[in-house]
Amino acid sequence: MAEAASRQSYLRDGAEIYARSFAMIRAEADLAGLAPVAERVMVRMIHACGMTDLPRDVEMSGDFAGQAEAALRAGAPILCDAKMVAFGVTRSRLPAHNAVICTLDDPRVADMARDAGTTRSAAAMELWREQLAGSVVVIGNAPTSLFRLLEMFDAGAPRPAAVIGIPVGFVGAAESKAALAADGRVPFLVVHGRRGGSAMAAAAVNALASERE
Amino acid sequence: MAEAASRQSYLRDGAEIYARSFAMIRAEADLAGLAPVAERVMVRMIHACGMTDLPRDVEMSGDFAGQAEAALRAGAPILCDAKMVAFGVTRSRLPAHNAVICTLDDPRVADMARDAGTTRSAAAMELWREQLAGSVVVIGNAPTSLFRLLEMFDAGAPRPAAVIGIPVGFVGAAESKAALAADGRVPFLVVHGRRGGSAMAAAAVNALASERE
Repeated sequence: MAEAASRQSYLRDGAEIYARSFAMIRAEADLAGLAPVAERVMVRMIHACGMTDLPRDVEMSGDFAGQAEAALRAGAPILCDAKMVAFGVTRSRLPAHNAVICTLDDPRVADMARDAGTTRSAAAMELWREQLAGSVVVIGNAPTSLFRLLEMFDAGAPRPAAVIGIPVGFVGAAESKAALAADGRVPFLVVHGRRGGSAMAAAAVNALASERE
Repeated sequence: MAEAASRQSYLRDGAEIYARSFAMIRAEADLAGLAPVAERVMVRMIHACGMTDLPRDVEMSGDFAGQAEAALRAGAPILCDAKMVAFGVTRSRLPAHNAVICTLDDPRVADMARDAGTTRSAAAMELWREQLAGSVVVIGNAPTSLFRLLEMFDAGAPRPAAVIGIPVGFVGAAESKAALAADGRVPFLVVHGRRGGSAMAAAAVNALASERE
């Protein structure tokens, strides 16, 4: 078996591991109809979660991949709801030394969350406001962040270039992603249902950031 | 529908979101036969990935949960293969201000990987050696790290108190986890197959670190 790995003979070459992984994904997953950039995003998200059935839950607006890639090339900041997302973005892949921002640990956030009666994740986004216009927003953890983003649009907040909205979990996750997909005001990527998370979200950014596999 | 969420009426109370999420998980997932600490670990891992069928792939050695929990209480360092794992560990849950260590960015690692003909993730573990005895090892990303850990044991390296071995992906992931489960020298948690990853790995640590839900 060519793919067999054992404690004695496992593959150690990082580049070769990536190449074989991506070949396995392309052989198994249904990637039909995806334009090249969207295909790259899908493959890397599958790579991050190990599940080749992921495409059945993924929805990207027609303008998502192009707008997000162009924004990153133009230097857009990457606004993340969770530190795990921010630390999953591979800095050496970024095309314009883009800022990667997570405001969750800002000392003002705890008070802001208490005053607004919401989660720290949702409150932290108020601190994004000045950088929101033309940014790439990446929500990989908190449904409340994604709901809050839509409320900010309702209240006239500047629009990002694209939103990766893939919070994971049981309460509000599926609903917040359905709300983003139905909203129509910004180019979006969602993973419908309960699946999602920081690793998938960071993988989408890493795919958009560079053609390198 | 009590659980319905919309843009107008989504749940904003973080504690209530956790409580409802964990109740949904306990209602849906097969947690039969798990001792309390192991059950807590399983619930939090499911919470991190949104998939209630996860238990069918999870294997914990009989001594894993008790040994890992006791080690953390005694102040064991937490050795992580990836920054996303390290940043997913909630510091306020740790019972003894435990050190959370990821050596991947150490400036020596690139040269070490080249000299050893392996990945940076595997090479970085050489820098764990002095802290390995009695530690909690958490591998959420690289199969090569998990294979390398077993080689280090073969070569006489000190034993950790417990190993969370849940790399994700397509090349070597399932094989490395099967090898850990078959090894028998250390208490272990694995997620068999391709699933796994940093979020699940950090969730397991967070569950072991505190009884708080």
